[in-house]
Amino acid sequence: MKHSKQEWWNRFQKYYTDFPTLGLALDLSRMNVDDAFFSAMSPKIQHAFMKMAELENGAIANPDENRMVGHYWLRNPTLAPIPEIRKAIEENLSQIKSFIAQVHAGKLCGQGGPFKNYLLIGIGGSALGPQFVSFALGDPRTDKLKPYFFDNTDPDGMHRVLAGIGTELNQTLCIIISKSGGTKETRNGMLVAKSAFDKARLDFGQHTVAVTTIGSELHKFATDNRWLATFPMWDWVGGRTSELSAAGLLPAALQGIDIDSFLSGARQCDELTRTYNVISNPASQLALALYASGNGKGVKNMVVLPYKDRLELFSKYLQQLLMESLGKELDLDGSNVNQGITVFGNKGSTDQHSFIQQLRDGLSNFFVLFIEVQIDEYQRSLFVEPAVTSGDFLHGFYLGTREALSEKGRESLTLILRDVSPFTVGMLIALFERTVGLYASLINVNAYHQPGVEAGKKGAVNIIAIQQRIFEFLQEHKGEFFTLTELSNRVDAHDDFEIIFKICEHLSQNPYRSLRKVISDSPFTAKYGLS
Amino acid sequence: MKHSKQEWWNRFQKYYTDFPTLGLALDLSRMNVDDAFFSAMSPKIQHAFMKMAELENGAIANPDENRMVGHYWLRNPTLAPIPEIRKAIEENLSQIKSFIAQVHAGKLCGQGGPFKNYLLIGIGGSALGPQFVSFALGDPRTDKLKPYFFDNTDPDGMHRVLAGIGTELNQTLCIIISKSGGTKETRNGMLVAKSAFDKARLDFGQHTVAVTTIGSELHKFATDNRWLATFPMWDWVGGRTSELSAAGLLPAALQGIDIDSFLSGARQCDELTRTYNVISNPASQLALALYASGNGKGVKNMVVLPYKDRLELFSKYLQQLLMESLGKELDLDGSNVNQGITVFGNKGSTDQHSFIQQLRDGLSNFFVLFIEVQIDEYQRSLFVEPAVTSGDFLHGFYLGTREALSEKGRESLTLILRDVSPFTVGMLIALFERTVGLYASLINVNAYHQPGVEAGKKGAVNIIAIQQRIFEFLQEHKGEFFTLTELSNRVDAHDDFEIIFKICEHLSQNPYRSLRKVISDSPFTAKYGLS
Repeated sequence: MKHSKQEWWNRFQKYYTDFPTLGLALDLSRMNVDDAFFSAMSPKIQHAFMKMAELENGAIANPDENRMVGHYWLRNPTLAPIPEIRKAIEENLSQIKSFIAQVHAGKLCGQGGPFKNYLLIGIGGSALGPQFVSFALGDPRTDKLKPYFFDNTDPDGMHRVLAGIGTELNQTLCIIISKSGGTKETRNGMLVAKSAFDKARLDFGQHTVAVTTIGSELHKFATDNRWLATFPMWDWVGGRTSELSAAGLLPAALQGIDIDSFLSGARQCDELTRTYNVISNPASQLALALYASGNGKGVKNMVVLPYKDRLELFSKYLQQLLMESLGKELDLDGSNVNQGITVFGNKGSTDQHSFIQQLRDGLSNFFVLFIEVQIDEYQRSLFVEPAVTSGDFLHGFYLGTREALSEKGRESLTLILRDVSPFTVGMLIALFERTVGLYASLINVNAYHQPGVEAGKKGAVNIIAIQQRIFEFLQEHKGEFFTLTELSNRVDAHDDFEIIFKICEHLSQNPYRSLRKVISDSPFTAKYGLS
Repeated sequence: MKHSKQEWWNRFQKYYTDFPTLGLALDLSRMNVDDAFFSAMSPKIQHAFMKMAELENGAIANPDENRMVGHYWLRNPTLAPIPEIRKAIEENLSQIKSFIAQVHAGKLCGQGGPFKNYLLIGIGGSALGPQFVSFALGDPRTDKLKPYFFDNTDPDGMHRVLAGIGTELNQTLCIIISKSGGTKETRNGMLVAKSAFDKARLDFGQHTVAVTTIGSELHKFATDNRWLATFPMWDWVGGRTSELSAAGLLPAALQGIDIDSFLSGARQCDELTRTYNVISNPASQLALALYASGNGKGVKNMVVLPYKDRLELFSKYLQQLLMESLGKELDLDGSNVNQGITVFGNKGSTDQHSFIQQLRDGLSNFFVLFIEVQIDEYQRSLFVEPAVTSGDFLHGFYLGTREALSEKGRESLTLILRDVSPFTVGMLIALFERTVGLYASLINVNAYHQPGVEAGKKGAVNIIAIQQRIFEFLQEHKGEFFTLTELSNRVDAHDDFEIIFKICEHLSQNPYRSLRKVISDSPFTAKYGLS
């Protein structure tokens, strides 16, 4: 890839495509793609287009779970394959809008007055999208509600968030999001939040809504406890593609983000990317560029570098969308493929002062996805030098780094966004949803399940059960102390020495748990008991 | 790596090392290491220990820049090779302490009263460490000053931070950090902040301190404008190892973090990791584990997964520390090696709901660095099930995921921290500084320079210069419109079509810049001019 400036310019003109109705342009000129590659891939991408059309028409596109995949219908319900789904989407949207209107008008209040904050409790697909959108489009100058998040089961982390809310708990609306309604981290977060409301002598249910599948554990809990409202999730929307369902729309609208424009950006991107013509379809261009760079096997990491602070969380969002969708052991034929694309990154030019050193000089195991945003901000920027703003520097650093990487044969592609607005953010989400769907077809994997995360969850459930048996056993033998070997036999966890060691060490470091340790010569022969 | 539980337990006992004085334990049992590997590496690691000792004694450990590397002296000035350095470190620490005491006592105030916030303006090594430490150790319940950061040159990003500070600008202390004193992003941030103070009719200098090399551009500016204070940086401290210099200590202490304990953690880790005995040296154990996993060539990504919200930014900190230190084209003998280790990650169990799917089932191109924290929080946690807290779930998810990865042959190592405190965070920083130093010796690269980042910066300067010439030229020809080809000739930027196109497109999207575009059939034949 050694080219003169004129040759680069020729490549640029050839591989730069402008999609003005989307506020988007795409530049593949610094990727290792050429006409021969696009020709060779033509049958595969045409097949992918066809599979996508089937999916959009209601095929069982997630065969392992025997489910339809319907996130595209969320922004155009008329496409839904059955009238019930169309109706459900439309009713949900009007339910959200009327709920939001009541909140913003102060008709629906907390016990301390109009809602000032929301506290979203969710994890994975129920947090990453809302966090990305909230950070991209929110602003202290315009936010109608201030966003807070519980996105984990760390009690210290949650208490710190609650401390940030402080005395405004009585004006805070909790949004509990769990598609299955049984996610432990989210259940725990809900309980910790409820406990804080209880302590403040506030009625939790009067400050809380649920977003979950109708009939789930969470749905029952919300109904039984007369929460303010519940909003539906559906089995045909996956967690990582749920940003345009209630999971994403509700918090966005609460914050004051224009969800009609957000939906419109996604819908218009869907419409434009349904074409079978690769050149006028940015999703297929992206999917093919990813395929070219990683040889269809994900051999290169994708480094996401938006030159815009607001897009800093986009890499985390894409991390889930790509890695959970594509990181699969088996393909659709059951062959072992160990697929995936590794995604990371933060933002430019900040990362130039961090890891760009390695990108230019070190391991050549990546390509960069640059994101350039043309409108710097919706006010005049300060001139930091004659005729130059700090936004010009941001732009200059992007161009300089793109060139510096290219000089060393490092590939990059650039998405050029007109601005960061509800429309373009909705468009961006739809663009990558479709890119991932097409890429998954190219490599023949199911993009819509996640079989690999169950093992860790089951392991955790087993560990929690062993811990409970240890406590029960030690409670019955209060004051007695046992070695790991003894404990493993007595609690019926034979050979689980490592797990019992870790549990006992963890508990004995937290004094109020009352588990005492009697030390020995080696850390592995200590004894543990309840005092 | 298929083992029975008993075999895993045997490996665990062998490769688990406890360092109680550091509040640290290290578990390499799930990495592909064995006795034969440690024996084979013995000469290399002994050589690395020797080089590290030379470095600590004041050798020119950064030969390209002809500099000593002295970050270890910062926490034990008696080790400094010359008395002037010892004195400088000691004086700096007492200057910080007396400055902080004045701020906290309200003797040094903003124009609106005692300082409530600090706004740190820095990038790379001048932001990542302070952000990591601030997030790990700060808390709305205890913070003496609330932290804000400008870590980029995005005007919109900066204005959003300023909007968060709101009317408290007159009680906000600005800390401008740039070792060289010439970092453009930081200079721009300083100018944007100054402009906000000016607009609020506040004296910027009365609210601002600089941390920079004595005599730098920034130092002169601070002195000329009578800022509150300046704190020194030194050429023997690199940006990415500057967290225990004024760059890190000043903001940490302002926030209310115990910097004596922070320094002590780092110092005690230094003392313990000076031993040439691998088994009792966690830094050398880590360096060797990294080497084993990546075959000394960084072929595996390092995925950082702390099961603790407070440590979420640690991966970003390590990203810089490892990738900027190790990501080198040439080794110390001048051979082309393209080294590095790729680092990313956020936190568990959150990431289990994001990319762990790929880690277990997909590409086998990584190892995981788990971080377990034993003390959940310094208060009683809520029981979410009988005898089980949400912290137990966090712990259970860590163990479950470690096991689920191990089942599939995915390697992991675990750092076990007693807690997240100033002492252990200081320890953690020192531990990885030394790990990186030792690893760099193992692979024979200079860990203390960053030659690869210059090209992007120079490119940016060139682009800014072209932009200025375009403006000057168009100013002289107001009302006339030019094609890219014409412009490239007229502003003496021959063949720089791509750059000129990008500059003109960027500017024409920001209406107040007055650059107008006359569209044509193709985006590449448009004309541009000043109206």
